[in-house]
Amino acid sequence: MAYDSNNIFAKILRGEASCIAVYEDTETLAFMDLMPQAPGHVLIVPKEAAVNLLDLSEAGAQACIRTTRRIAIAVKKALGVEGLHVAQLNGAAAGQTVPHCHFHVIPHAAGTVLRMHAAVLAPQDELKAMAERIKACLV
Amino acid sequence: MAYDSNNIFAKILRGEASCIAVYEDTETLAFMDLMPQAPGHVLIVPKEAAVNLLDLSEAGAQACIRTTRRIAIAVKKALGVEGLHVAQLNGAAAGQTVPHCHFHVIPHAAGTVLRMHAAVLAPQDELKAMAERIKACLV
Repeated sequence: MAYDSNNIFAKILRGEASCIAVYEDTETLAFMDLMPQAPGHVLIVPKEAAVNLLDLSEAGAQACIRTTRRIAIAVKKALGVEGLHVAQLNGAAAGQTVPHCHFHVIPHAAGTVLRMHAAVLAPQDELKAMAERIKACLV
Repeated sequence: MAYDSNNIFAKILRGEASCIAVYEDTETLAFMDLMPQAPGHVLIVPKEAAVNLLDLSEAGAQACIRTTRRIAIAVKKALGVEGLHVAQLNGAAAGQTVPHCHFHVIPHAAGTVLRMHAAVLAPQDELKAMAERIKACLV
């Protein structure tokens, strides 16, 4: 599948669309999912233009998991949550909604059910407050 | 959480329990999930003793995603499937059933629903045949 440079994550990476950022380095960007499956749901994207993990370079994949692991540690520390999902969907058949490779870090409290993927917008002030809590726990 | 060296993946890594292997290198092992959520469901584990992604070293995480990406490419090639889930569950609250860090690669054909996690054993001969198909597509 050819990469569509007009997808929303490409626009965020070019600064043409806004995001609530949590972390950035030379190869990756992490920001709050606007439609979180649970409070504290963060997305990690490579700066490399790649539709999915299969198209992404090995170095790009390694940069993503490095950031994903750091975010997971910070989210757990910030929220004190028992469970964390790391998910990475490839292809619309698997539920991928934005055609730029991304990793999800989703807190999962015991006994709760995650909300649907990409379903309900969360209030911006809640997302911003959550981003600050997570950023404060990044090491 | 302290690492329990008697978990089934630790036994597989020590050669005390069998698995249907797909790929192995110095840092990781990939093998068929005995209770696949869809045909072609593969697990990737680090050889490093770590309960989850948060406990795993950064180098271990990078080794895992390198193998996970290779397996994902091979599974897609072997099965010609449209969608692929990569999932990595941390903590029983998130559905982690074996306390040794692992990544799932799960094919997801359009319009199908994945089976429950860790629910129904698949026939060994089907798993072995699937492993051979995937191994033949590893590059």
